[in-house]
Amino acid sequence: MSSAAAGEKGIRVRISNFNLKELWIQSDIPAATAEDVEAVVAAARKALTRNKGTEWGSATGAHRAKYLRAIASEVKERKDKLAKLEVLDTGKPWDEAVSDIDEVASCFEYYADQAEALDAKQKAPFSLSMDTFKAHVLKQPLGVVGLITPWNYPLLMFTGSKIMSSAAQLVKPVTLKLGGKSPIIVFDDVELDKAAEWTAFGCFCTTGQICSATSRLLVRENIATEFLDTLMKWIKNIKISDPFEEGCRMGPVISKGQYEKVMKFIATAESEGATILCGGSRPEHLTKGYFVEPTIVSDVSTSMQIWREEVFGPVLCVKTFNSEDEAIELANDTHYGLGAAVISKDLDRCERVTKALQAGIVWVNCSQPCFCQAPWGGIKRSGFGRDLGEWGIENYLNIKQVTEYISDEPWGWYKSP
Amino acid sequence: MSSAAAGEKGIRVRISNFNLKELWIQSDIPAATAEDVEAVVAAARKALTRNKGTEWGSATGAHRAKYLRAIASEVKERKDKLAKLEVLDTGKPWDEAVSDIDEVASCFEYYADQAEALDAKQKAPFSLSMDTFKAHVLKQPLGVVGLITPWNYPLLMFTGSKIMSSAAQLVKPVTLKLGGKSPIIVFDDVELDKAAEWTAFGCFCTTGQICSATSRLLVRENIATEFLDTLMKWIKNIKISDPFEEGCRMGPVISKGQYEKVMKFIATAESEGATILCGGSRPEHLTKGYFVEPTIVSDVSTSMQIWREEVFGPVLCVKTFNSEDEAIELANDTHYGLGAAVISKDLDRCERVTKALQAGIVWVNCSQPCFCQAPWGGIKRSGFGRDLGEWGIENYLNIKQVTEYISDEPWGWYKSP
Repeated sequence: MSSAAAGEKGIRVRISNFNLKELWIQSDIPAATAEDVEAVVAAARKALTRNKGTEWGSATGAHRAKYLRAIASEVKERKDKLAKLEVLDTGKPWDEAVSDIDEVASCFEYYADQAEALDAKQKAPFSLSMDTFKAHVLKQPLGVVGLITPWNYPLLMFTGSKIMSSAAQLVKPVTLKLGGKSPIIVFDDVELDKAAEWTAFGCFCTTGQICSATSRLLVRENIATEFLDTLMKWIKNIKISDPFEEGCRMGPVISKGQYEKVMKFIATAESEGATILCGGSRPEHLTKGYFVEPTIVSDVSTSMQIWREEVFGPVLCVKTFNSEDEAIELANDTHYGLGAAVISKDLDRCERVTKALQAGIVWVNCSQPCFCQAPWGGIKRSGFGRDLGEWGIENYLNIKQVTEYISDEPWGWYKSP
Repeated sequence: MSSAAAGEKGIRVRISNFNLKELWIQSDIPAATAEDVEAVVAAARKALTRNKGTEWGSATGAHRAKYLRAIASEVKERKDKLAKLEVLDTGKPWDEAVSDIDEVASCFEYYADQAEALDAKQKAPFSLSMDTFKAHVLKQPLGVVGLITPWNYPLLMFTGSKIMSSAAQLVKPVTLKLGGKSPIIVFDDVELDKAAEWTAFGCFCTTGQICSATSRLLVRENIATEFLDTLMKWIKNIKISDPFEEGCRMGPVISKGQYEKVMKFIATAESEGATILCGGSRPEHLTKGYFVEPTIVSDVSTSMQIWREEVFGPVLCVKTFNSEDEAIELANDTHYGLGAAVISKDLDRCERVTKALQAGIVWVNCSQPCFCQAPWGGIKRSGFGRDLGEWGIENYLNIKQVTEYISDEPWGWYKSP
């Protein structure tokens, strides 16, 4: 959920949220203003240095872990409420939102463990080339940090494309998790149903609105027809509905603007000569709401917009390949490099392909599962830096080199006077 | 040394170097052009992917280590020649240049070891919250990388202040090592001579042209007079001369522009009411060359330019303090956060102060020693990211998450058709 503004200051901006009855996004809630952000930063800075930092800035990981676990506990207690708010905010299916909130709680617990582990790693010594010095590393909080989170996984990730240029003015460190046009490669030794479910999940969960969605399907030519038939059967079975309805697996896209953008992508693909194999319109049974059918686009060339640009909606484009090398070349034919998936029973092949894929995340025989233990981030124009896992915490730490001269002798560089 | 342009393309830019006879920087050598850089990048990209990357892009660390050790060996073999070129390029004292070249060779050897160690760390597994998946991390080269090195330690560091904004256009990852106005804190329990030598070394080595130079001296009020007397004795003993002369400990600054800039800093300090305790002009015995005497500026207030801005020359400004807290507050009174030094026999105090100093590097009972094993970089406006040590190599690696679904069961998110 987006944060609410301090009431007394007046509401300057409003953001829309999902209207349950109409399945249309049209009600709105107050958004935080620049003044709210300034007040929050000032409060955070004050808390950081209070009592010379003993209360928070220089508190141990163990101390912080208590707060993180308390947050996890509150999240779990309010799970149903938070999941409901998430559905209202995003239009995600209820089951997905519930699973997200579970993950949020796990993530806070995981970082409580990491904070404790950090205490044990403090003052890690390392050896220098001169024995008259000894050295260790201190890991200390950088200070107050600003996060701009995306609406799709607000409590798990950070994002931002315009952030870096403005941060450059004051040399602020940033990590960026941007978009993608991630490939999924399906070889001809797969179980069709399993591969089809992962392919569908990889592109259509959260209605395709995931930066790492594997929205370019590369399938081995000799099984293409059969595989696409299977995939279409799975897709036709996906329940698209009011996200609160039992069994719903696809809700609406996030906004009117996004709905129009997705429809335009589909229209452009058609006009460029691609074939809409299935989907491509509003589902017949849903006359209101920003719903889009899961869509497969074939007869795609590598110069088409649908191949090159991120849709951020339930649209999968397909190309076939005849060799491992060709699959890798097609998969890497993008400026992005966030996720990639490879489906094959031949694990040696999976390993070769995994190494060759230009991406920050490679899924083998699956697509999209995200764990807070695993480093998350991309290469090329998908950004840099890693969130989550033990890597994520490093973004917030000053790696302080401490080098001590331990000899009784003078340094001896200058002549003594 | 700055690199030479490909002759046939014509020389567009020339960079000055040190003229031995005149002790003046006035001869010049060709600089690389934009076309040269493009040709080098193209060649590097070609080498990276040749034979599907087997020759370089996907070569093992052990393979790369051979090249790194060969470079180290060539550097050692040409040590005298390289040191001479360094002196001619920078005006550094011969002894300093020799020590730099030794460090360059050590650095290549150290990273040969690190490259080998990386092989052993490949495919490091980490546990996930679901046992139907297993995961590991691959560390692979990011690709062709551009480095802009400073003239003072060209083979050891990278720098750049205007780089980040332009990199933002294409979302290129950057690390930045920028300037500083680093403090050195001298408590009243020190041995005066030892503390004075480190204070002099911390600000006057490489003629003060080091981004981490500890150019703000904070000395305990009760020993200030005595300490400054000792320090001035050490400073008067520093041999300023032709950098090739035996025993030289200070050469000229890098350029006419820098000479004028340093002189202007001193004049501004005086005009703002500071006292030039010693130095402040050209040494009497050197009528030619961009030489500046080691200079101490006292009666400094925290609003003066000399307190706030980086001089990048042999100018030390001084303030006194009366308590540990005051010392820390004064030390942290800067937008920069690269280095900091604390000198005291009380190691508990050193530890408290080390923790409280807002800097990427803290020297205890010394200042400036730089080891290729130790993480190098700053916080605040001194940049971010860490070079050197095991941290430095990470800047060039894609941390690739590889997550494999290992269950025989279908994923089961969608209903089977």
